[in-house]
Amino acid sequence: MDLIYLDNAATTQVDERVLNKMLPFFIEKFANPATKWTSSLSKEVDTYVEQARIEVANLIGAGPDEIFFTSGGTESDNTALKGIAFANHDRGNEIISTSIEHEAVLKPLETLAKMGFTIKFIKVDKYGFVDSNEVEKLISKKTILISIMHGNNEIGTIEPIKELSKIVKESKIYFHTDAVQTVGHIPINVKEMNIDLLSISAHKFYGPKGIGAIYIKKGTKINPFMEGGEQESGIRSGTLNTTGIIGLGEAAKLAKKEMHLDNAKIKNIRDILWQKIQKQIPEVFLNGAPMDKRLSGNLNFLIKGIRNEPLLVALNEIGIIAGGGSACSAESKEPSHVLKNIGVKQEDLFSAIRITIGKFNSEKEIDPIVENLKNIVKKLRNLSPFWTEGK
Amino acid sequence: MDLIYLDNAATTQVDERVLNKMLPFFIEKFANPATKWTSSLSKEVDTYVEQARIEVANLIGAGPDEIFFTSGGTESDNTALKGIAFANHDRGNEIISTSIEHEAVLKPLETLAKMGFTIKFIKVDKYGFVDSNEVEKLISKKTILISIMHGNNEIGTIEPIKELSKIVKESKIYFHTDAVQTVGHIPINVKEMNIDLLSISAHKFYGPKGIGAIYIKKGTKINPFMEGGEQESGIRSGTLNTTGIIGLGEAAKLAKKEMHLDNAKIKNIRDILWQKIQKQIPEVFLNGAPMDKRLSGNLNFLIKGIRNEPLLVALNEIGIIAGGGSACSAESKEPSHVLKNIGVKQEDLFSAIRITIGKFNSEKEIDPIVENLKNIVKKLRNLSPFWTEGK
Repeated sequence: MDLIYLDNAATTQVDERVLNKMLPFFIEKFANPATKWTSSLSKEVDTYVEQARIEVANLIGAGPDEIFFTSGGTESDNTALKGIAFANHDRGNEIISTSIEHEAVLKPLETLAKMGFTIKFIKVDKYGFVDSNEVEKLISKKTILISIMHGNNEIGTIEPIKELSKIVKESKIYFHTDAVQTVGHIPINVKEMNIDLLSISAHKFYGPKGIGAIYIKKGTKINPFMEGGEQESGIRSGTLNTTGIIGLGEAAKLAKKEMHLDNAKIKNIRDILWQKIQKQIPEVFLNGAPMDKRLSGNLNFLIKGIRNEPLLVALNEIGIIAGGGSACSAESKEPSHVLKNIGVKQEDLFSAIRITIGKFNSEKEIDPIVENLKNIVKKLRNLSPFWTEGK
Repeated sequence: MDLIYLDNAATTQVDERVLNKMLPFFIEKFANPATKWTSSLSKEVDTYVEQARIEVANLIGAGPDEIFFTSGGTESDNTALKGIAFANHDRGNEIISTSIEHEAVLKPLETLAKMGFTIKFIKVDKYGFVDSNEVEKLISKKTILISIMHGNNEIGTIEPIKELSKIVKESKIYFHTDAVQTVGHIPINVKEMNIDLLSISAHKFYGPKGIGAIYIKKGTKINPFMEGGEQESGIRSGTLNTTGIIGLGEAAKLAKKEMHLDNAKIKNIRDILWQKIQKQIPEVFLNGAPMDKRLSGNLNFLIKGIRNEPLLVALNEIGIIAGGGSACSAESKEPSHVLKNIGVKQEDLFSAIRITIGKFNSEKEIDPIVENLKNIVKKLRNLSPFWTEGK
């Protein structure tokens, strides 16, 4: 059997068109764009970098001067949180976030808490949704920043960002969203959605790893996180990763043009897959939001009575690659904080698997997935002391 | 005329062998190594990542578990300085550094100063050398970190790191060196040189941009700078830039094998070039250390009576790309802090150019460089009100 890759939330395969666009910048056009004033080679590279900036800006309805390239989503989150906190602590020391954020938000917040900031976490409902009333209750005169993710990486829930950010529209509170799972997948307009800061990662939408961007609304008071030679208007220092930037730009351009079609295809595969899984495997339960309110490729579900690790290993042995939760915490043996926070029972925390469909998946993969999953689940359940059919 | 690229300290062309090694990891082997326990595709990528780590470790005499991948030299410097400062401030708040460091060291130090740390800067002599007696004088009970660059990016001076780090060998003071200009060019052994932290950048030695590493001696007390999913043993979070890492690994492997030969060739070109320039152009003066105590490819010199910008522009017009100083501050119109600190006179600060030879340069480029430089200098001097031949 050909490999079936179902872990597109962890990372995606680079689109061949993206790679082709990047290739000349390793050898032929290798110059450092910083010296554009005295080097035509640098000037040429700079032109491509600025075109990439425009593509990224266009994808999310921003101005090119509001896009700053980083090394990825994690750096964008660190920049947003620490940058806003340190630049605005004279106005207050309170930050509001949610209990289901990615570690790239939670860990910087932990550090800020140790430094004297107060972090208030909004609880989510059983689908993973944040209630705007709950946000409003937590806001005080000391609040300087609200950080709420757009699409959850584990359960796929898409937060109602426009409704949530409305609360702070006329205030001086900044609104950040970690949109690493949604940029390039669903339409985003930072102006219409009233977003001040937004994190982007290229490798989540068929771009290369090691490159991302942060949107920072013009006029935002922020300190740099990565300090040095003052590239990117002083917001992000370090020699520009030109190949990565050009790859990100191309991925953004392709996404703007094609994501609607890709997403329709992805959603179709996902929906058929889930229907068949439910029909053929007893006692499976969806984690997270209803199908129309979650990321099109995301399927996260409990399989009662089994542990996800042996299941994933067995699937992998026959060439099917799925995930157990967040890729980033795959090495830790801690249960998912996201599943915990949407109320999944203690006994079920290790029984969830995450299947995330991407544009390179195809409908003909559905039946092999269901068939193999069914067989493995049956085998594992037969071995499990905690499982009785129809219990 | 073919392009003559003389700005190898700003960035280098990627070695074709490095690119070829990277290529499979964009599309075919695109997996996220974090999920290696449940995905054979990830496990395979992880194997290559760990091999790259060994290559980088071997290049500097470190253990592979002391190498952490970052997005480049700037991030490595930020990690070293902020990571050590925040983790050790209970023991003291003093940091010693030099006045000729790269901005990627100076800017984080400025920020640490605002946060309550005391930064003591060692003065350098007219060659750019740090005197170990001066360092010793500045050390107090509150000193927690000394950061001294290995090779200066502007004037090429190689600091006597082994002699300098000896001072803190038996103490609890950490020693960091920004070795971005030396790694892959001259032999480094972190154990013999008694280095606790060392910054590496791939694109300075024929690897790709957007990737670097930091060596952190085992047992060092350091806080993470980039926080999130706790990749790289929690020292550096963020999805691993697998293509970049594999490129860095290959560049390290090639450097270990070939840098002696490359360097001999580079030094030969540089030395002949400088002899000819001195012979054919009056009133040129070397900035920085004597030839045997500076980076083999580095030539930084004053051309009395001219401004470097029109000179570089004119050189570029005929296909010769050189630099004015640091690439990172090329956009700023401030004079070089390095030249200032080695005592270059105010009137000469904008009369310096930097030529940095790399392994892709050849001896046959020497004469066209000298010829063109001579002509342009003559033209510019004729136009200059500050220049009188033989004055």
